[in-house]
Amino acid sequence: MIKQSAADRIYHSAKGLFYERGYKKTTTRHITREADANLGLIKYYFDSKKVIAYRVLDDYFHEIYYSIANYVNEDEDPLLYSYTFTHTIVSLMFQDPKVERFILESLTNEVMDHLEGALLKSPFYTISEKILKEHSFSEILDTEQTILLNLTAFHNTLKSIGSIRRQRPDSFTPFQLRIYQFKMTYFGLGLIVSEKDQKLEEAYELSNRIIKETPFLNAPETFFTSPQNSLRW
Amino acid sequence: MIKQSAADRIYHSAKGLFYERGYKKTTTRHITREADANLGLIKYYFDSKKVIAYRVLDDYFHEIYYSIANYVNEDEDPLLYSYTFTHTIVSLMFQDPKVERFILESLTNEVMDHLEGALLKSPFYTISEKILKEHSFSEILDTEQTILLNLTAFHNTLKSIGSIRRQRPDSFTPFQLRIYQFKMTYFGLGLIVSEKDQKLEEAYELSNRIIKETPFLNAPETFFTSPQNSLRW
Repeated sequence: MIKQSAADRIYHSAKGLFYERGYKKTTTRHITREADANLGLIKYYFDSKKVIAYRVLDDYFHEIYYSIANYVNEDEDPLLYSYTFTHTIVSLMFQDPKVERFILESLTNEVMDHLEGALLKSPFYTISEKILKEHSFSEILDTEQTILLNLTAFHNTLKSIGSIRRQRPDSFTPFQLRIYQFKMTYFGLGLIVSEKDQKLEEAYELSNRIIKETPFLNAPETFFTSPQNSLRW
Repeated sequence: MIKQSAADRIYHSAKGLFYERGYKKTTTRHITREADANLGLIKYYFDSKKVIAYRVLDDYFHEIYYSIANYVNEDEDPLLYSYTFTHTIVSLMFQDPKVERFILESLTNEVMDHLEGALLKSPFYTISEKILKEHSFSEILDTEQTILLNLTAFHNTLKSIGSIRRQRPDSFTPFQLRIYQFKMTYFGLGLIVSEKDQKLEEAYELSNRIIKETPFLNAPETFFTSPQNSLRW
């Protein structure tokens, strides 16, 4: 019980700080102070700040992913499900500068390696597998290789659109960067997404509805600052 | 004269250290010691280690780029020129673990922002422009936007293949990662590259020949450790 709550306190304190101060400016010292813990406990439960960030991101992506299950059947239309997920992630980034900063700063090489390492057991794997049954990215890569490379491209592209918005706020519209995210993400699963794609439009409307109707998406800070979200693992 | 040579000493010392020790493990203190300079001079000429790295990368990419001019006419076949460039970069990464480490570590967000900021004045811009005359990535992006996003994807993909080789050395063959680099890079310019692409084969053979016949490519350490390569700017 006591062990659980120390890990939980560290996790929740870090999550709130990552959101409010940013990932880069949050030190392990800030986390220990906020969590009323010590460096040894962070080391013991999480090893490092990077591992906490990986778990926050992983939880965040999973929560968003599962919130779509009430609206789309993954088996009936895996592509609509996946499009809606991507739309939602991008919308949340564009709507809340603190979410965008967190994603941009925390997706370091090491954190991405962690995320991609956990891939095989995740719903992102199974949905990509379903999409790949109808499409093919490359003849010389098997399904597992394709999905791994695709997840890397997904993360890199998310980071890039965040970085471009920060560096060149007037060079691109959100719509243009969104299309870029879609084109790059789904090309890696063998699809050529067009700007006029009907399903893209459908997913966009659905994503807006889901964000509106889902409390933790509707107010993005909820996920990061409310204590009720518990560790998934 | 004196000003020139201090900047040059810093640049050359840093370049050698980035190659031998790696970018991450090289501190500004190492550079000042090796260059017989002080921190103030680094600050004055380069601002930071990141700016030195950006200039080394930029010079490296340009040197490789220009070495192809003796073999392919850029106006006659811009795609073959560009393919050969990409093949050469990837081959050098795969042939020399120190080159790979340098590219992987130095392509941080900030360094990438610098590189992409210098894009408009570079030959990478004009060749992409030539390719885009025959192709289109997206109707809603203009040429400049497309090329900027494409360069980002090119850098991200280079980093990804380096990172995957380090994390999962047995998961992919060099050939598979090379194809991935090509597919992602040229998709961003509106081309769907196939594994069986004839021009890809041609560029590969040409790239091997260029590497063999060009001293600084043939022995990759030459670029980083020999003092004769001067600053381009």
